[in-house]
Amino acid sequence: MSLLVTGSIGIDTVTTPFGTSEACLGGSAVYFSMAASWFTPVRFLGVVGDDCPFDLHKTFSGRDVDLTGLEVRAGSKTFRWQGSYVGAMNDANTDSVELNVLEEAPATLPDSYTDTEFLFLANTAPALQSQLIDKVNAPKLIVADTMNLWIDIARADFEALLKKIDGLVLNEGEARMFTGKDNLVAAAKAICKEGPKFVIVKKGEHGTLLMTKNNECFVLPAYPTDKVKDPTGAGDSFAGGMMGYLANAGNYELNTLKQAIACGTVVASLNIENFSLDALQNATIDDINNRLNTLKEMIQF
Amino acid sequence: MSLLVTGSIGIDTVTTPFGTSEACLGGSAVYFSMAASWFTPVRFLGVVGDDCPFDLHKTFSGRDVDLTGLEVRAGSKTFRWQGSYVGAMNDANTDSVELNVLEEAPATLPDSYTDTEFLFLANTAPALQSQLIDKVNAPKLIVADTMNLWIDIARADFEALLKKIDGLVLNEGEARMFTGKDNLVAAAKAICKEGPKFVIVKKGEHGTLLMTKNNECFVLPAYPTDKVKDPTGAGDSFAGGMMGYLANAGNYELNTLKQAIACGTVVASLNIENFSLDALQNATIDDINNRLNTLKEMIQF
Repeated sequence: MSLLVTGSIGIDTVTTPFGTSEACLGGSAVYFSMAASWFTPVRFLGVVGDDCPFDLHKTFSGRDVDLTGLEVRAGSKTFRWQGSYVGAMNDANTDSVELNVLEEAPATLPDSYTDTEFLFLANTAPALQSQLIDKVNAPKLIVADTMNLWIDIARADFEALLKKIDGLVLNEGEARMFTGKDNLVAAAKAICKEGPKFVIVKKGEHGTLLMTKNNECFVLPAYPTDKVKDPTGAGDSFAGGMMGYLANAGNYELNTLKQAIACGTVVASLNIENFSLDALQNATIDDINNRLNTLKEMIQF
Repeated sequence: MSLLVTGSIGIDTVTTPFGTSEACLGGSAVYFSMAASWFTPVRFLGVVGDDCPFDLHKTFSGRDVDLTGLEVRAGSKTFRWQGSYVGAMNDANTDSVELNVLEEAPATLPDSYTDTEFLFLANTAPALQSQLIDKVNAPKLIVADTMNLWIDIARADFEALLKKIDGLVLNEGEARMFTGKDNLVAAAKAICKEGPKFVIVKKGEHGTLLMTKNNECFVLPAYPTDKVKDPTGAGDSFAGGMMGYLANAGNYELNTLKQAIACGTVVASLNIENFSLDALQNATIDDINNRLNTLKEMIQF
C-alpha cells in the first residue's frame, strides 16, 4: 500500500569519536525514505531552500521514491543541524541549529498524495502533524514521531495529536518525560491510554519496546554491533524500515508489527555503521535479510 | 552437579519510591541461593557476626541449600548496607555501609565443599575470589561477579582473576569502565580477550548481553514488568537462576548458557517486584516457567 513520509531534509555537520562529517545530507525524511524504499514505494514530502546543495533525485536514483512532494522554495534557506555524540553515543548533542525553511509553511501536499494509506509523520510541531493528517483522505495507518521539545512547549497540541494517530514512536527519555513514569512499561501503557493503538519506545543501543492498547508487549534488543560510527538517523531509519515493511504487508496486526520492528532494527543497525547515508546507500536487501536471520537466532533460547 | 556460592549475608535497609524496608535480610549469597535452589542443590559459603538477627536455616527451609558453610563468628558484626533507588532504579545509591565481618578473614571452606564442580564467586575483593578458587579441587565452571570498586582499587588482582575464571558477570558501567570502551559489544569482546570464555553484561531494565571468546553473541531483553518495587538483589538472583540452571544441566555450552540466562532473567524479574526476599520466597517454579514461556513468546518475530 502507499506510504507517505513527511519530515526534514537537512544539511548536517556531525562529529562523533570517529570523525566529523561536514555539511552532509541528512534529515528525517531522507533517512526514512532510504530505509523504507527497500520494502515499498515511498512518497516523499518535504521542503528545502534554493541553497540546497543536494540533488535528491540522484540520492534516490534506482529507488522507488516519489519526489513530487519535494518543494524547493525560492528565497528560503535549507534546514541546518550541527550535532555531536560522545561516549556510548545514545544521545545527540545539538551544537547549533538553523531551522530556516522549517519555520515557514510546510511543504504543499501534492494531489497525487491525498489517497495515501500509510502515513508517517516524522518529528515536527504536533500542530503541523495534525494539519497534514486532515489533508489525507482516508489513511489506514498513521504513525508519528516526536521529541522532548514538543512535549515541553506544545503539550496540548501533542495530546490532541495522540487522539488522531494509530501509533507513536518516541525515545525512552521522551516517554518518561511525557508520562512522568520512570518505568518504561508503565510509561508505554500510559501513552496508549491517551489515544494511540500502539507505542514503540526506542532505547538506542538497548533496542525497542512495543506496547499495544490491548497490553500486548514485544521487546527486541538492538542488533549488536561494535562498528557504530554515527548514530544520526538511527531513529528515522528504524521508522523507515518498520513503516516500509508495514505498508508492504498492508496491515499492522501484532505479528506484522513485530516483523516490521525487526526490519527497522536491522536497517538502523546498518545505518549507524557509517556517516550520513553512506551505509544505507551501500547496503543491499541481502544485508538486511542476513541481519534479520542473525538477530532472530541471537535471541533464541 | 554441585553448585557453590560464596558471597555476603547482609542486614539491608533499602529505600525506593515504593517505601523503605528496614534492617531486612539481604546479601549476594542469600539472593543467589534463593534463586539457584529452584534448579539445583546449593552449597552456601558466607560469614555473619553473632549479632545476626536472621535464622538462615528458617529462610531456606524447604529448599535444598546446604548451610554447612555458614559461619557465625563470635565477637564479629554482620555486614550492613543502606541504599536507595530513584527514578528508573537502574542504579543503587549506597547511603551507608558497614563492612564489619567482610573486612575480616573470609568464611572457612568446609571439607565437604572441596569437590564442588560449579562455583560462583559473588562480588568481593578479587584476591579473595582467587584464593577460594585455589581451595576447590577441580571446578568445572568458575564464574565471578565484580564491582567498579575492585576495577578501580585492585585492577591487577582483577586481571589476575580473569585468567582463572571461565565466566564473568558484570554490569554495563563496569564493562565500560574496565575496558575504556563505550560500545558494549566491543567492551565484552575486550574482556573475553583477558581470559574468560564468556562475559555476561547486565543492563538492568534493558536485559543482558552474552559474548563468548568465539564471538558468539546472545542478547536478551529484561522481562518487561511495570511492578518494580525494589531492585536489590536483581543481579544476584539473576546469577543464581543462571548458575542453578547450568549446574543442573551439567555443562555450559552456548545453548545451555542461553537457557540459563533466560532463567536468570525471569527469576530476577520476580525478585524486583517486592522488597527484600519477599517475592522470591513466595514465587513457585510455575511462576518461573510461565514467565519463561511469556518471555520466549514476547521476543519472537
